[in-house]
Amino acid sequence: MTAEQRNKWIGFDLGGTKMLSRVYDGDFKPLGWNRKKTKAHLGTKAGLERVVETIRDALKDADVDPSEIAGIGIGCPGPIDMEKGVVLDPPNLGWGKVSIRKHLEQEFGCPVAVANDVDAGVYGEYRFGSAKGVRTVIGVFPGTGIGGGCIYEGAILRGSKCSCVEIGHIPVLPDGPLCGCGQRGCLEAVASRLAVAASAARSVYRGEAPYLQKAAGTDLSSIRSSSLANAIKAGDEAIEQIVRDAAHHIGTALAGVIHLISPDVVVLGGGLVEAMPKLFVEDVMAAARDRVMVAYRDTFKVVATELGDDAGVLGAAAWAEKMVVGQSTK
Amino acid sequence: MTAEQRNKWIGFDLGGTKMLSRVYDGDFKPLGWNRKKTKAHLGTKAGLERVVETIRDALKDADVDPSEIAGIGIGCPGPIDMEKGVVLDPPNLGWGKVSIRKHLEQEFGCPVAVANDVDAGVYGEYRFGSAKGVRTVIGVFPGTGIGGGCIYEGAILRGSKCSCVEIGHIPVLPDGPLCGCGQRGCLEAVASRLAVAASAARSVYRGEAPYLQKAAGTDLSSIRSSSLANAIKAGDEAIEQIVRDAAHHIGTALAGVIHLISPDVVVLGGGLVEAMPKLFVEDVMAAARDRVMVAYRDTFKVVATELGDDAGVLGAAAWAEKMVVGQSTK
Repeated sequence: MTAEQRNKWIGFDLGGTKMLSRVYDGDFKPLGWNRKKTKAHLGTKAGLERVVETIRDALKDADVDPSEIAGIGIGCPGPIDMEKGVVLDPPNLGWGKVSIRKHLEQEFGCPVAVANDVDAGVYGEYRFGSAKGVRTVIGVFPGTGIGGGCIYEGAILRGSKCSCVEIGHIPVLPDGPLCGCGQRGCLEAVASRLAVAASAARSVYRGEAPYLQKAAGTDLSSIRSSSLANAIKAGDEAIEQIVRDAAHHIGTALAGVIHLISPDVVVLGGGLVEAMPKLFVEDVMAAARDRVMVAYRDTFKVVATELGDDAGVLGAAAWAEKMVVGQSTK
Repeated sequence: MTAEQRNKWIGFDLGGTKMLSRVYDGDFKPLGWNRKKTKAHLGTKAGLERVVETIRDALKDADVDPSEIAGIGIGCPGPIDMEKGVVLDPPNLGWGKVSIRKHLEQEFGCPVAVANDVDAGVYGEYRFGSAKGVRTVIGVFPGTGIGGGCIYEGAILRGSKCSCVEIGHIPVLPDGPLCGCGQRGCLEAVASRLAVAASAARSVYRGEAPYLQKAAGTDLSSIRSSSLANAIKAGDEAIEQIVRDAAHHIGTALAGVIHLISPDVVVLGGGLVEAMPKLFVEDVMAAARDRVMVAYRDTFKVVATELGDDAGVLGAAAWAEKMVVGQSTK
């Protein structure tokens, strides 16, 4: 098979609970896919085997031969070393240091590009979604933590030795609540879905949120983005205030990001935003505009993700294309 | 005269109080210079005439003919529009919107590159000083405000529509002291030379700083960086605490910058730092290391400027070369 027939791209999203692979043609039309549970607790070797198996099953679903693959792009939880294609012991995998690029290159005999999962998602929005072709995009994805990513002049912004754009760990409240990273008052300690759920549970416990009480109770594991959105719709004002406070904190932290990087577009994504896109876009925009210097007020816009869950896997595939073909795209 | 003989570069630093021009040969050896007061109050037309005159006098000093100029690089106070070469009404000039590139190109018939003055200084350190050839440099220059700049992959980091890396306006204290930009609790409202001088004056007034009292009294205009450094040397502990607090705030704000951009090197400069380089490098480094996530702790170093006052004018000239020749350098 000649090089010209190598015209399919694989996108892969390696998450803490599930892994997803899609096969695309040269125009990034999806041809097939597969998804498995990550089962990170089974360890590194078993994990890598599941990654390979997921790709093989996606290829079967797409009816594509491995020899047709032009490249594989894989989005992984941070921290990672992009240059070396190594995953650096992310807490939600517990696999230690894994040379995932080397492993997949040996397995499939094609180039493999490794990116942070949030960067891959933001790259997806830059190539195909709500931030097409602008110079600088910042992505903010509030979930269990708050992920961040940046595309600058057509490429993922790269940090020294490890990834960057850790928006979740911008200090926002001196002596604020303890963050999972060991520091205090990080953005994600006050504005992630987990932080919001914790405040919401407290509100339920106090009897301030009757609708959420019926739907989810005081257990953080039951308080999902959709239950928060429904409670607000049903009239739980205390919950609305909590969510708006989170959006306000995100907007205020973004003011610092805007003063530093001055993005053209800020893309908001993740479950919390997808459940309440209008509230988040409006409140984050208002807080950011309110907190930036006058000269920066009309330099950016805030939008919600267009590709949703697909951004990461599609972005990873497109990033592989950029790395292999060197195509800078519009 | 042929194009090959166009091998001299002009660097220019346009400040609120003075303007400085230097002429360099192709290896950036200085050949001559001139300096004038800016006299910004005389207005835009008179100001531009003084810029041209300063360049002409520097050329005379260097014994270089205008036809030998390959390019002019000019560092200006922000905000600016780099693409268009326009200065966008910086508060310390009061000249409105000035197409400075167009004006100088017409005057000297050579390409002109316009950069933010701090960016020019950081580019100087990147090309010739304490941050040679690294992927990402962040510059922090505490003065009346706190200037910031960033060189990323060999070029000045560019923002949307205007410049960026406004480190002085990162929010650090919610509801903190009022900043010159109209917001509250910006870094420069708590850690600039002006903020330090204000705290020091208060300390003098309270009788806590006998040495500074003798040297400068309670007038902010008399409390210079050197008087602060001398007071600390002489034993004014209250002043030392104030300066260390400022360094601590800068380091804490830098933690956010490190989480976002993950620079290899942070260059500290400006009068306050040059008067006390050891104190600033150590305290800023300690505060930043203390506040970043573990994965980022050994990804950066903090250094003092190597070129001092020359960084800006030399960096502007080198930036003109990069823009004209497209030379990415080491």
